[in-house]
Amino acid sequence: MVPDGGNYDGTLGSLSALEVIEVLNENKTVTDHPLEVIIFANEEGGLIGSRAIAGNLTAEGLKQVSQSGLIMAEGIKAIGGDPGNIQSCIRKKGDLHAFLELHIEQGGILEAENLHIGVVEGIVGIMDCEVTVEGVANHAGTTPMSLRQDALLASSKLIIAVNEVIRSLPGNQVGTIGKITALPGAYNVIPGHVTLGLELRDLSAEKIELLFVEIQKRAAAIANDSNVKISFRREASEVKPALTDKHLQQKIDASAKALGLKIKFMQSGAGHDSQQMALLAPVAMIFVPSVGGISHSPKEFTKAGDMVNGANVLLQTILAVDRG
Amino acid sequence: MVPDGGNYDGTLGSLSALEVIEVLNENKTVTDHPLEVIIFANEEGGLIGSRAIAGNLTAEGLKQVSQSGLIMAEGIKAIGGDPGNIQSCIRKKGDLHAFLELHIEQGGILEAENLHIGVVEGIVGIMDCEVTVEGVANHAGTTPMSLRQDALLASSKLIIAVNEVIRSLPGNQVGTIGKITALPGAYNVIPGHVTLGLELRDLSAEKIELLFVEIQKRAAAIANDSNVKISFRREASEVKPALTDKHLQQKIDASAKALGLKIKFMQSGAGHDSQQMALLAPVAMIFVPSVGGISHSPKEFTKAGDMVNGANVLLQTILAVDRG
Repeated sequence: MVPDGGNYDGTLGSLSALEVIEVLNENKTVTDHPLEVIIFANEEGGLIGSRAIAGNLTAEGLKQVSQSGLIMAEGIKAIGGDPGNIQSCIRKKGDLHAFLELHIEQGGILEAENLHIGVVEGIVGIMDCEVTVEGVANHAGTTPMSLRQDALLASSKLIIAVNEVIRSLPGNQVGTIGKITALPGAYNVIPGHVTLGLELRDLSAEKIELLFVEIQKRAAAIANDSNVKISFRREASEVKPALTDKHLQQKIDASAKALGLKIKFMQSGAGHDSQQMALLAPVAMIFVPSVGGISHSPKEFTKAGDMVNGANVLLQTILAVDRG
Repeated sequence: MVPDGGNYDGTLGSLSALEVIEVLNENKTVTDHPLEVIIFANEEGGLIGSRAIAGNLTAEGLKQVSQSGLIMAEGIKAIGGDPGNIQSCIRKKGDLHAFLELHIEQGGILEAENLHIGVVEGIVGIMDCEVTVEGVANHAGTTPMSLRQDALLASSKLIIAVNEVIRSLPGNQVGTIGKITALPGAYNVIPGHVTLGLELRDLSAEKIELLFVEIQKRAAAIANDSNVKISFRREASEVKPALTDKHLQQKIDASAKALGLKIKFMQSGAGHDSQQMALLAPVAMIFVPSVGGISHSPKEFTKAGDMVNGANVLLQTILAVDRG
């Protein structure tokens, strides 16, 4: 759950899966492969449900404090679960023939390009890194411009450099400085210490590394020019990219085209349970447009027609995959 | 008082004034003009002592909360004063023949240029302004680089522009962005809202206005290019520049040169009680070097020889001013 989030992220996939089962039952359609609907808990808290199924929710992980303020094991008990029995939900690699997930895009690409369906090629990897810029805090009135070691001015150059590095290569990679703290933080003091939160995302782990090396090079040049120190500390929360299955991508593509829908092969910039499921089985994802690209907000919206398209593509893809 | 401040800011002037009186008494020197030593309270809290003498400490001002956590009127009582009787200390314009203040430079210019005495030409005016940059907060994974309205990226361009504008003109003007807040402030969200604290200082109020106009022009161009809104709100705390008296400057200059000292005419980038006293009388200030330009820090230091020079120049200037 996202605090103050929307009504489509997660919910669309869950309800569409139930609708697909209902349609199959109404039509007395029996598939060769047994079908199963999984509604994962706490995707936003770190893919917790799918992590459990993939066997990656460790005893250590259950001790983490969740958004509720309870540690996860206590939270599971509070909603009637048994954290001691969590191992029982683990699936083995090879147990599942395929895993499909329908989701809102959470970006503005499909809407901007007037398309119906996104065939997800993979879910991006994420590298978070804390950047520290050390200058010298000094009196903003008595320190001449030429004698300053302004950590915020140097940070500004780095923020622009990050943007330039990301945009210097073709592709869908993104890079963001989402956090900044400048100390001491007063009108009359030149900032001496700045920390930045840098995030890089791409479908290729190699490209993320390449971008990071380039950013560090630019940072070294800025540090030298601005007489400050810049250091990088990668966060432990790093997520590896997860690719979807080519064969399943083709089934989605063909199903959507047979329904007369306009499609695009694209990456998912947001995280999804499919990342964990990809460790167990071939996975694929179907995206439908998000109006204005807005997500994690009460303003999140997907048109009814787009939701219907998504559910139909999910149904037809299931039937196509079942036929082999 | 500055929390965690140094031992020279303020103290040097107070002790040197007492030393001058002692030397005059020891030498049985009687001046034509009566001499008075004033040790002001709470210069750092907004020139409170000198403001009271200049008649600018209003009933409203006495209701402000001071650093102690008490409102100022209660704080004055707590140290044995009578806030109800504050009007009795007011001096009239013309009552004083001259006002002299000896102070550490609080900057690194005298030390860097290997000089002994700074003859202060004036105390800079200060304009503080809160700058707001409005973009659109969005998902850092799903929002392509080309569709972003990143308030922090635009702010970085503005911080660099401020630095460029300040340095584009000759002179001693300074401009600082000392404060920044970027919201919502998470690795995975593009910042949508940034506030900056901009401070400009110069001896000329006109130059401050000129710089501010230029900064606003650059901001308008950045806002346009970056698809954000940038607005400026000037703080009420604005301080006007205060010029020192040319005649008194010459007396300091001549006294220092007669003592064989190397001097420089310079501005004060920091605020001083002389600003308020300049409303009542001709004022002048004598600066001595600060090691490393450090001030408002326990590391603040002025060499004994430099302090002796300052006190001697103060003594000789008083005698020269007394002779007319």
